[in-house]
Amino acid sequence: MINTDEMYMKKALLEAKIAMDKDEVPVGAIIVHNNKIIAKAHNLTIHLCDPTAHAEMQAITAACNYLQSRYLDQCTLYTTLEPCIMCGSALSWSKIGKVVYGASDQKRGISYLEKNILHKKTIIKKNILMYECGNLLSEFFKKKRKLKQKN
Amino acid sequence: MINTDEMYMKKALLEAKIAMDKDEVPVGAIIVHNNKIIAKAHNLTIHLCDPTAHAEMQAITAACNYLQSRYLDQCTLYTTLEPCIMCGSALSWSKIGKVVYGASDQKRGISYLEKNILHKKTIIKKNILMYECGNLLSEFFKKKRKLKQKN
Repeated sequence: MINTDEMYMKKALLEAKIAMDKDEVPVGAIIVHNNKIIAKAHNLTIHLCDPTAHAEMQAITAACNYLQSRYLDQCTLYTTLEPCIMCGSALSWSKIGKVVYGASDQKRGISYLEKNILHKKTIIKKNILMYECGNLLSEFFKKKRKLKQKN
Repeated sequence: MINTDEMYMKKALLEAKIAMDKDEVPVGAIIVHNNKIIAKAHNLTIHLCDPTAHAEMQAITAACNYLQSRYLDQCTLYTTLEPCIMCGSALSWSKIGKVVYGASDQKRGISYLEKNILHKKTIIKKNILMYECGNLLSEFFKKKRKLKQKN
């Protein structure tokens, strides 16, 4: 039996790997509507020189454009890292139906806040392929630290 | 003597009025660097069909592009309405130097949270031309309600 959440998270992981290849913090996100991927994005804050260019933000913009709707209540977002507060609030404005994430982010993630900032109807599912998602980030930061030590 | 904050807030108000003319929730924002306006934006969530297209978000993207930097620590953002959580967190990622806002937003604004989500070094100044900023919003929602009652 195929685990749908894992299957889609693997697609988000592919996006995170593209970010990694571009030397960006490896986070990827996809949005699914009626079993179809309608948006794929990866973190591009360095390349676009824009702190708002998180994977989730770009995926929301792309999915809304695809559906020609400001609301994503019939959609699921898969992201390799727990959404930060900016992305969590953007997801709330979109009234997204479900958010599935991989690795946790206790410092910058939505769970850092006491209040739930997502829409009250949004379903949250966490820890899907958390090791794969987290390892990619650890590997990235390990490389960065090594480079820093060399210089 | 010219009140600099009021002078710049008037520019943000002009942006909010452009949003009003486009039938968007009237919120405007500008970003100032070395006494020069480097970004102007107004809410475009309906026109762009994008819940992330708040005035502040667009202003951050434009200012970072102008400065070719992901950080706005030498900049001040003027916005007619207290930033929402999404915009507040985006401002935090940008490490913006100062945030000046007009009307308060107790339901959706950053002050709704117990924790300060802005960068710890960011200076906050509020209630600048708050009546002008707030009246524009009240007028907009009054019109909307009247239209709803008619239909």
